[in-house]
Amino acid sequence: MAKNRVTLKDVAQRAGVSYQTVSKLINRQIRLAEETEQRIWQAIQDLGYTPHYNARSLRAQRSFTIGYSWPPSPPDETNPILDQFLQSMFVAAEARGYYLLMFPYHYEVEKQIAAYADLIDAGRVDGFILSSVEYDDPRIRYLQERNFPFVAFGRSNPEWVFPCIDVDGGQGLYEVTQHLIALGHHRIAVLAWPRESRVGNNRLEGYFKAMAEAAIPIDENLILRGEGKLDFGYRATQQLLSLSLTQRPTAIVALNDYMAIGAMQAAQEQGMRIGEDLAISGFDDIPLARYLTPPLTSIRQPIWEIGQHVIQRLIDIIENGQIPEPQCLLVPPTLIVRASTDPKVKASPFSRTATQKEVISR
Amino acid sequence: MAKNRVTLKDVAQRAGVSYQTVSKLINRQIRLAEETEQRIWQAIQDLGYTPHYNARSLRAQRSFTIGYSWPPSPPDETNPILDQFLQSMFVAAEARGYYLLMFPYHYEVEKQIAAYADLIDAGRVDGFILSSVEYDDPRIRYLQERNFPFVAFGRSNPEWVFPCIDVDGGQGLYEVTQHLIALGHHRIAVLAWPRESRVGNNRLEGYFKAMAEAAIPIDENLILRGEGKLDFGYRATQQLLSLSLTQRPTAIVALNDYMAIGAMQAAQEQGMRIGEDLAISGFDDIPLARYLTPPLTSIRQPIWEIGQHVIQRLIDIIENGQIPEPQCLLVPPTLIVRASTDPKVKASPFSRTATQKEVISR
Repeated sequence: MAKNRVTLKDVAQRAGVSYQTVSKLINRQIRLAEETEQRIWQAIQDLGYTPHYNARSLRAQRSFTIGYSWPPSPPDETNPILDQFLQSMFVAAEARGYYLLMFPYHYEVEKQIAAYADLIDAGRVDGFILSSVEYDDPRIRYLQERNFPFVAFGRSNPEWVFPCIDVDGGQGLYEVTQHLIALGHHRIAVLAWPRESRVGNNRLEGYFKAMAEAAIPIDENLILRGEGKLDFGYRATQQLLSLSLTQRPTAIVALNDYMAIGAMQAAQEQGMRIGEDLAISGFDDIPLARYLTPPLTSIRQPIWEIGQHVIQRLIDIIENGQIPEPQCLLVPPTLIVRASTDPKVKASPFSRTATQKEVISR
Repeated sequence: MAKNRVTLKDVAQRAGVSYQTVSKLINRQIRLAEETEQRIWQAIQDLGYTPHYNARSLRAQRSFTIGYSWPPSPPDETNPILDQFLQSMFVAAEARGYYLLMFPYHYEVEKQIAAYADLIDAGRVDGFILSSVEYDDPRIRYLQERNFPFVAFGRSNPEWVFPCIDVDGGQGLYEVTQHLIALGHHRIAVLAWPRESRVGNNRLEGYFKAMAEAAIPIDENLILRGEGKLDFGYRATQQLLSLSLTQRPTAIVALNDYMAIGAMQAAQEQGMRIGEDLAISGFDDIPLARYLTPPLTSIRQPIWEIGQHVIQRLIDIIENGQIPEPQCLLVPPTLIVRASTDPKVKASPFSRTATQKEVISR
C-alpha cells in the first residue's frame, strides 16, 4: 500500500462518487447526504488514503514543523523583541516549507521537559528553537540526550557545546563603556541582573574589559543588581545619587532600557540634566528609546538576522544532519549613541530624519 | 490495514529487531547499523505504520492544530498585547489537546489568501484565529466560502455575521469622555486613526455618544486623524495648542497610548502641566503608561480572557460544529484613571502599592 500511493481517484472510484466530490468533502467545501459522506470516509479508511500533508510527512518521516516556546513577559513589561523574532523565524521557515508550532512555557522543569517529550513522541515537530537560555538549561541536556535537533538563541554553560547563536552582549557593553570613558567618565555605575543571570554576566564582561583596558579600578559599590525592571532602575539610581560627591557615579550603564528609563526618572526628579550632569545608557533599543527626553543611548540586537539564522541552521541540521561550524555563532550588537550620554547629539526625535542624526557606531 | 492498526510490535517482528529498538530509532534516540536502520524503515513502509500523532490525526480526520498569523508591528513600535494574546491562546489550546501553528502575514490579498488555502488544502490546520480584522476583510469572505472554521478577534462590516469576539472600544471611549466631562471639560480633542480604520471608528462612536448625551456640540477641528504613532500625536498636539485660547482643547483623548505619549511631550515642551493645564488619555494601558510623568490615564483590554475565549469557541466549532450565540461577543474594557487626567490621583508609580492607588472604574 505504502509503495503504490492511493490517490483521490481511487477513493472516488471505491465510493462511487466523482473525484471533485471527494476533494470538496476533504476540504470541507461541501456537505453531502450523511450516507454519502460515510461511504467516502469508509473508502478513505479502507484504502488508507492520506491527505497531502500527512502523506508528505509520512514519506519523509518528518512533520515539517519546528517547535518554539518562550517565557511570557510579566504583565508590567513588554517583550521588545518578540514580534520581530517570531516574524523573522516564520518567514525563514516558510521559505523552506516549514511552519512554527507554539506551545506553552512551563517554569517547572518536569512539566517543561514533558512538553518537549510529548511533541517529539507524537512526531509533531522535527526540531526546536530555544530562547531565554540560562546556565544548566535542562532543555539542552534533554534534547542532547535524545539526539533531537535544536538550535538555541543564547549561550549556556561555557563548556557546553551545542548549536547556538547569540548576541555578543559583552561587546555591546564594551563599546558603550569605552564611549563613556572617551567622554571623560571614570565613575561608571552598572544596573545589572543577579549573579545567576547568564545573559547579565555575558554583558558585564564587556564592562570589566573596557574598565581594565583603561586601567580604571572597579568600585563594587557602583554595581547594583536587581530584577531588571523600571522601578529597580529608579530605586538603584536614588541610592547611587545619595552617595557623597566623590563616590557618586557620573555615568550609569543599564543592562536594559527599562532600568535606564527608571534611572532617568530618578535623576530628573533630583533636577539633574541627563547627558550633561549624568550620562545614562540602556540595552535593547526599545522603540520608545529614541522618543525619550532626552533620547536614550542604547544597544540594538540584530533580531531579524538572528531569527533567520536559527531557522536556517535548524533546517540544515534536520535535513542534512549538518552541524554548523562554529557550533555557536556570536553576532555583535550596534551601539546607538543619543543625547542621554552625549549632549552633542541633539536631534529632535520628531522628524523623519531622526535616525540619520543618530550616531551608529558600526 | 486501516482497521487493524499496525503497531510497533508488528514493525519489530517484520524487521527482526526488538520493540524498543524500533521505538528508539523512530524517536531518534539511537543510531544503528545502516543496514538495520534501512530494514526497519522498510518494515514501517511495508506495513504502513504511522506514528502516534499522524495516526490520531488520520483517525480523527483532524490535525489538532490552529493556524494564526498577524501583521508584524512596524520597527518603531512594540505590539503591546501580542505576547499575552499568544500565551493565553496556546495555554487554552493545550488544555484541549491543540497547538498553534504560526505563518507569515502577507499584505497582498492574493498571497494572503493563498497562505490560508495552502494550510487548508494540506490538512495542516482545523481552523484559524484572525486578528487585525478590518472592513471587507478578504480572509473572512474566503473562509466563509470554504465553510472552514474560524473565530475572529475583532469585528468587520456591521452587516456581516461570523464568530467573533471584540473589545467594546466604543464603551472605553464613552467612559473616558464621560470622565473628562465630569471633570468640567467641554473642548475635548481626539487623536484618531484614518476614516477607513474599523477599530478607530468603533472607538470614536463612544466619544460621540458621550458628547451627545452631555449636549456638547462636536467641533470637527478638534478631531485629528493620523497613523496612530507617537510623532503624529506630537505634531497633532502642537497644532491643537496653536489654536486660539477659545478654540484650544482642555483635554485630549488619544486612541492609543503612543499618540498620548507624543501629546504629553508636545504639551510639556510648551510648559504645560499635564493633568492640570491639559488632560490627556490613551488606550491600551501599555506597561510604561503607569510609569510616565505624570502616569497616563488609559483603557485596558482583557487580552487574556479574549485569547482563552477565541480558542474555546473555535474548538467548539471544530469539534461540535457548535456556532456560538451571540455569534459576536463584545467585552468591555477597563478605564484606568491616573494623574494625566485627574491630578488628585497622585500616587507615585514607584511603590508596590501603585496599582492600589489607581482608580479602576469597574
